[in-house]
Amino acid sequence: MALIVQKYGGTSVANPDRIRNLARRVARYKALGHQIVVVVSAMSGETNRLIALAKEIMPNPDPRELDVMVSTGEQVTIGLTALALMDLGIKAKSYTGAQVRIVTDSAFTKARILHIDEERIRADLNAGNVVVVAGFQGVDEQGNITTLGRGGSDTTGVALAAALKADECQIYTDVDGVYTTDPRVEPNARRLKSITFEEMLELASQGSKVLQIRSVEFAGKYKVKLRVLSSFEEEGEGTLITFEENDNMEQPIISGIAFNRDEAKITVLGVPDRPGIAYQILGPIADANIDVDIIIQNTGADGTTDFTFTVHKNELNKALDILRDKVQGHIGAREISGDDKIAKVSIVGVGMRSHVGVASQMFRTLAEEGINIQMISTSEIKIAVVIDEKYMELAVRVLHKAFELEEA
Amino acid sequence: MALIVQKYGGTSVANPDRIRNLARRVARYKALGHQIVVVVSAMSGETNRLIALAKEIMPNPDPRELDVMVSTGEQVTIGLTALALMDLGIKAKSYTGAQVRIVTDSAFTKARILHIDEERIRADLNAGNVVVVAGFQGVDEQGNITTLGRGGSDTTGVALAAALKADECQIYTDVDGVYTTDPRVEPNARRLKSITFEEMLELASQGSKVLQIRSVEFAGKYKVKLRVLSSFEEEGEGTLITFEENDNMEQPIISGIAFNRDEAKITVLGVPDRPGIAYQILGPIADANIDVDIIIQNTGADGTTDFTFTVHKNELNKALDILRDKVQGHIGAREISGDDKIAKVSIVGVGMRSHVGVASQMFRTLAEEGINIQMISTSEIKIAVVIDEKYMELAVRVLHKAFELEEA
Repeated sequence: MALIVQKYGGTSVANPDRIRNLARRVARYKALGHQIVVVVSAMSGETNRLIALAKEIMPNPDPRELDVMVSTGEQVTIGLTALALMDLGIKAKSYTGAQVRIVTDSAFTKARILHIDEERIRADLNAGNVVVVAGFQGVDEQGNITTLGRGGSDTTGVALAAALKADECQIYTDVDGVYTTDPRVEPNARRLKSITFEEMLELASQGSKVLQIRSVEFAGKYKVKLRVLSSFEEEGEGTLITFEENDNMEQPIISGIAFNRDEAKITVLGVPDRPGIAYQILGPIADANIDVDIIIQNTGADGTTDFTFTVHKNELNKALDILRDKVQGHIGAREISGDDKIAKVSIVGVGMRSHVGVASQMFRTLAEEGINIQMISTSEIKIAVVIDEKYMELAVRVLHKAFELEEA
Repeated sequence: MALIVQKYGGTSVANPDRIRNLARRVARYKALGHQIVVVVSAMSGETNRLIALAKEIMPNPDPRELDVMVSTGEQVTIGLTALALMDLGIKAKSYTGAQVRIVTDSAFTKARILHIDEERIRADLNAGNVVVVAGFQGVDEQGNITTLGRGGSDTTGVALAAALKADECQIYTDVDGVYTTDPRVEPNARRLKSITFEEMLELASQGSKVLQIRSVEFAGKYKVKLRVLSSFEEEGEGTLITFEENDNMEQPIISGIAFNRDEAKITVLGVPDRPGIAYQILGPIADANIDVDIIIQNTGADGTTDFTFTVHKNELNKALDILRDKVQGHIGAREISGDDKIAKVSIVGVGMRSHVGVASQMFRTLAEEGINIQMISTSEIKIAVVIDEKYMELAVRVLHKAFELEEA
């Protein structure tokens, strides 16, 4: 008998039929003797509907009141889910975040969980109930309703699993696991049976969108066994996200390939090579709340240097304006240019740590296809390259093949 | 400076425009220096939508879970209302029933308020906030969400006014007050400036639908000054419902005329006149959960009696079946007949207590129009007659004129 936390997202509870499906799945686990805690999101579209309603009244809604409204989305779903379970003859009981108490700080719309009172849930489980908890929400020390921000239901699931010392936290989504890369780009992409947290973090931040980064970090911190599964398939073991590298003896060198084309590149050419120049360039960018991803600086031979970094495409023009207005004259840069026709492709794998030659194999593979590399950035378990956007799919496919990631 | 509780029903918060209207009204009261607590219902239609959704999953929804879902209706409205006030530059803060804490018993879907913690609201008011409270809902001692049943928002308003010792509880509705009778039947009907609780109770139970009976009883118990106002008019003083008869020196004898045609009459003829006969007739009716309104029994000369009572029209056939199957033979009644072509017309007024001749004036007025009276029932401040349905409007109009209730 295991204690399992199952988290279902908005598409898994989008209508009464899907909620009945969810209940039947829970019933199967219950029949095996497991104790089940179900965490649900709002029915898909509901959160956006509530936010739009609030904005009709007040264009920049007060965050405390917005949370009061938005939290009703999950509250409706927990009621429906408990009813669907009862309709199958299963004892069930619902809890809002405040009822549990999932105590958070008071940062409305983006609160962080401080601690969870798990006693009532444990008592209900021991009394034979399935416990249904509203994801995405909590309550601060003063009793105000808070929400955790987008993707917060994953975090609720992981945090509950940690508090209850659950055997596994299952995240049900519309994909059946984590793949070596996006199957829409590489049809031979293969579902991974397991992946480490670090790899998952790199894949998530590199553009895979299966799980929210924050919930993965949370799971890593509390050593919660996380499994990604499809809510639309009866069977299937999904992908287990582990926190121990040696869980799998046959660990491949590369686990997956991530990519995105949401970034744009900004190059500052002919900058005098002196201390403080990076701060002089990026300080005004940060002040404007523009996130910077990759940063590269090369020292040139003539006492000048070229400075390159990437920002989100939507912020390219804003960043260029800031640099040209406030920075270029000040630092004496020769030229400032932007390019939004780029893509980032990353290979990720903990096996890199113990294998040499991974980078050179990646570069050779791209060179053989005539794909020029514009920027390179590396971490311990990741190599990311920026290339011309039009080669992105080709790069993903040839790398997928070169690192033998395809379906066996 | 007064402390005023204002309660707004579902039609007053049906859409963002109406909520903005509500906020402007609150702003006007606030500008006069008053402290305001606003109690709101769910947007009209929302409660029914949520109940229908629950029934899609479970035809007879578990009441605890139904309350979890249904209570979200008011929770959305409190957020919207607080935002609309803030948008006008007014400090506002919303509370669910559980947050206040409005503590109820655990009778889900029809809970009764046990007590209210009013300290937080009072602190917020003293800090200059308008406090917005969700009507219709509370929380039991175990922390479960409860609802008070239909019309419960009126009760919330009155209960909060009692707990806060408010100067007045204003109930905003789609009529601008309590009238001497329904203006659709008698165009000369006049709005009453004030009415006593007892009269209001009689009018409400006799078919006027301005206020929920339960909230009027509650207001009477705690001596809360209640005022009915229109939410669609800028000005207007509505109708004050008082708990002291001498509030108005010019108290008329009759305050209003109520009527309804929802009832049907059942007559049991030729019943042996012996003890226990009323119970033998009405016991099986009560066992079938059929409500009985007026009951009349006349002793005849031949040792038999005729027994007449009224039930809701929808239950006439069910009641007749029960009587014919289980009762008629048993008690030896000669005949059992039903009539659903009846109407009940009542005159109500505390002035009756000190004036003789009110009943005879009523009967004479009806006689002059050739309207036959089938049943008569009286209380200290009410005389109700059952007549042929087709004379109902005529009876209301001639009584309205006879008791000089028309617009001056």
